[in-house]
Amino acid sequence: MVQAIDLPRNETGIASVLGVLKQRFGEKFQTGEAIREQHGHTTTWIRTQAPDAVVYPQNSDEVAEVVKICAEHKVPVIGFGTGTSLEGHVNAPAGGICVDLTDMNEIVAVHAEDLDCVVQPGVTREQLNTYLRDQGLFFPIDPGANASLGGMTATRASGTNAVRYGTMKDNVLALEVVTPKGDVIRTASRAKKSSAGYDLTRLMVGSEGTLGLITEITLKLQGVPEAMSSARVSFDTVDAACQAVMMTIQYGIPVARIELLDALTVKAVNAYSKLTLPEAPLLLLEFHGSEAGVAEQAELFGGIAEEFGGTGFEWTSSAEERNKLWQARHDAYWASVALRPGAKGISTDVCVPISRLSECVNAAQERLDELGFIAPIVGHVGDGNFHTLPLIDMDNPDEVAKADEFVGWLNDLAISMGGTCTGEHGIGQGKRPYLVKELGGAVDMMAAIKAAIDPDNIMNPGKILSL
Amino acid sequence: MVQAIDLPRNETGIASVLGVLKQRFGEKFQTGEAIREQHGHTTTWIRTQAPDAVVYPQNSDEVAEVVKICAEHKVPVIGFGTGTSLEGHVNAPAGGICVDLTDMNEIVAVHAEDLDCVVQPGVTREQLNTYLRDQGLFFPIDPGANASLGGMTATRASGTNAVRYGTMKDNVLALEVVTPKGDVIRTASRAKKSSAGYDLTRLMVGSEGTLGLITEITLKLQGVPEAMSSARVSFDTVDAACQAVMMTIQYGIPVARIELLDALTVKAVNAYSKLTLPEAPLLLLEFHGSEAGVAEQAELFGGIAEEFGGTGFEWTSSAEERNKLWQARHDAYWASVALRPGAKGISTDVCVPISRLSECVNAAQERLDELGFIAPIVGHVGDGNFHTLPLIDMDNPDEVAKADEFVGWLNDLAISMGGTCTGEHGIGQGKRPYLVKELGGAVDMMAAIKAAIDPDNIMNPGKILSL
Repeated sequence: MVQAIDLPRNETGIASVLGVLKQRFGEKFQTGEAIREQHGHTTTWIRTQAPDAVVYPQNSDEVAEVVKICAEHKVPVIGFGTGTSLEGHVNAPAGGICVDLTDMNEIVAVHAEDLDCVVQPGVTREQLNTYLRDQGLFFPIDPGANASLGGMTATRASGTNAVRYGTMKDNVLALEVVTPKGDVIRTASRAKKSSAGYDLTRLMVGSEGTLGLITEITLKLQGVPEAMSSARVSFDTVDAACQAVMMTIQYGIPVARIELLDALTVKAVNAYSKLTLPEAPLLLLEFHGSEAGVAEQAELFGGIAEEFGGTGFEWTSSAEERNKLWQARHDAYWASVALRPGAKGISTDVCVPISRLSECVNAAQERLDELGFIAPIVGHVGDGNFHTLPLIDMDNPDEVAKADEFVGWLNDLAISMGGTCTGEHGIGQGKRPYLVKELGGAVDMMAAIKAAIDPDNIMNPGKILSL
Repeated sequence: MVQAIDLPRNETGIASVLGVLKQRFGEKFQTGEAIREQHGHTTTWIRTQAPDAVVYPQNSDEVAEVVKICAEHKVPVIGFGTGTSLEGHVNAPAGGICVDLTDMNEIVAVHAEDLDCVVQPGVTREQLNTYLRDQGLFFPIDPGANASLGGMTATRASGTNAVRYGTMKDNVLALEVVTPKGDVIRTASRAKKSSAGYDLTRLMVGSEGTLGLITEITLKLQGVPEAMSSARVSFDTVDAACQAVMMTIQYGIPVARIELLDALTVKAVNAYSKLTLPEAPLLLLEFHGSEAGVAEQAELFGGIAEEFGGTGFEWTSSAEERNKLWQARHDAYWASVALRPGAKGISTDVCVPISRLSECVNAAQERLDELGFIAPIVGHVGDGNFHTLPLIDMDNPDEVAKADEFVGWLNDLAISMGGTCTGEHGIGQGKRPYLVKELGGAVDMMAAIKAAIDPDNIMNPGKILSL
């Protein structure tokens, strides 16, 4: 919240660009207040900073044209996918032009033999997976929201499947990018691996639109596994659940998902999704492999869970039961918010080495109790990543201040444990001070790169770096 | 060869630096010709360009000190691990100081619970794996040579295990780097995943010492699998072998290694390692998993191989037989060179989408036959990466010219197929023109990054970029 600071506006440049774009893009250029507000809207407590206009390019050339016009007048350019980012990524603190990539939603090519595909940035992950279903392929990264693949790339998103399939950094093969000068470049070939120069693909993944606009993405795909099974098991304590996770990972069981819900989240999910799960810390798992393989994995895990006092272990290869369970997990955010109607959920995103996970989750839970917050906790615990969600009355300045303090305290704690302030949401506006705490002098190198690629700081200013 | 062009030398600066370093580093500073030649030596046809001196720092602070001294006098700094790179990476075309990191070979920490470790850059992969053995852990990346982990990081190395475990980009969690100014930075935390700003870790991986010197590496580790099995099967044609590989990958069998040896390589290996393998295109495989899992994988693969006319399929979980087979594969380079005593083996390194692999290998083989070269072919075919090794009489200018032409022709072919000129060896000096052919305008962005981070171009000049 405190990080959504207004930056100086280049009024002359903005006025010129508005005139040029209006003439050039007609109906595909909008300046109505509602549309602008919606494009600066954040689902979090960070206040809205609307852009001056929204433009809807239809192809890479049009994106390049918009960027060239903005570059000429030194006016900010902010990429927009579906607006599900959580750290003020789409805000316009210095005004400027929002480039909404919704219309660029074509699946350009699927190379089934190579297990890759090429998509435009506005394609959403559900759209892609629906398209792929008949070919026995899927794209595994699943941040929960039906985000655009351009946005997921720009924020280095991950989610429940990352423990097995990695994050966006592991699943993007190559990108087409419009640079801050308006040039169109390709960062890599379609080869599965390469040592050809600096890894611009990985530099762009997670750069949050500050180094260029992503206009095409080559993604790795996976074959749909022969079999999937899911499992659940409850524990007396979060600590016991975390110990079981650690052992499972060390044992090398290739879990596809391993998710923690604390007792409060289970309670919320039961109410929201009409389930009757035991209201205790819960692990939800999914296994991918052959029929024999997923059975073996589930049973091995069951044995580990038992060692750590797990109860009510159940596993199934029924797709219906599996989907019900994962739908409940995906709805955990809404279920949690429903615990306190009218409140805002403020999601933290720390990620720590797994050996410190239990200690970190416990400390967070204690602190939240002390502060008197209703705050469910869920975690992508196989990666050491978890989200607390204190539910805040935004009209109560005392609560807001306490929540702000909590977020800072938790980020500091994670950093002190060798972890990061953000496992998957990104820095955006909200976490810029913590990035400096976490990486110190490395941030100077980031700033040098930004200055070299975008000397006029027109690409999503005020994000990641304090520029 | 043609790419090892001498660059202008800063004689005054070099003289000053030699004086300062000699005084400061005493015995750990060497200027003898033999040592200098050895540190500019390449195992390939690229000619040696020796540095002016070699310094052996003992820790990060000493590396930073060397870099600061060189930065002050604008003198080149070239990192050196074990000297097994293949594209002139350690040459000194403008002279300067070679920083030999051999003495920085400490395994700083192993975090078994987190499946990671922290090593100094001079630690070799065999040293690390020997150290880890008792803990049931291993580091999977295996480029064949017993390279240093610093060098492997700098060149984005991979090798036979990459099909399952990825390349260095996938297995480095964080780096400590001495920047061209002599500052010491850390690129990331020890968290398994992160969205904290630009991915400097991946930018440094594969930067070939041109953006800084790597002084500490945090690596992901793997648990030693419960079971391993290996398999071999012969085919009538390279095409049939490639088809079987493609089907295996699409089927989602999690092969740990899948290597192709052409008939000529098998012949060489038989002679060199006293084996009696059928002298036909051969696939060697390894499977990691549970006892039941590796049996299932091997049998599934056996079925696929049969579909494509594979013969002599055998699999085993005997460690002794497995090691014998893989030792033979690792010795394939020496076995191949022995086919023409006195000749140099010139390794190509293209990587193409797997759907184009068979076509690319066949075209290469035909062209090599036309040119009259003895040229064995091996391939990390699960990734679409293969090496041809024309054996050249370096005293015959006609042969050298023809080989040079062949390398260029093959790189162009791979690029035209959506592939890369280098799957794992890197650009170094030798492949700079092909990088531009492959990535065009993206190379300008690389140059801008280089100029921003290393404005005086002191870090390994003349590599990757034509600077």
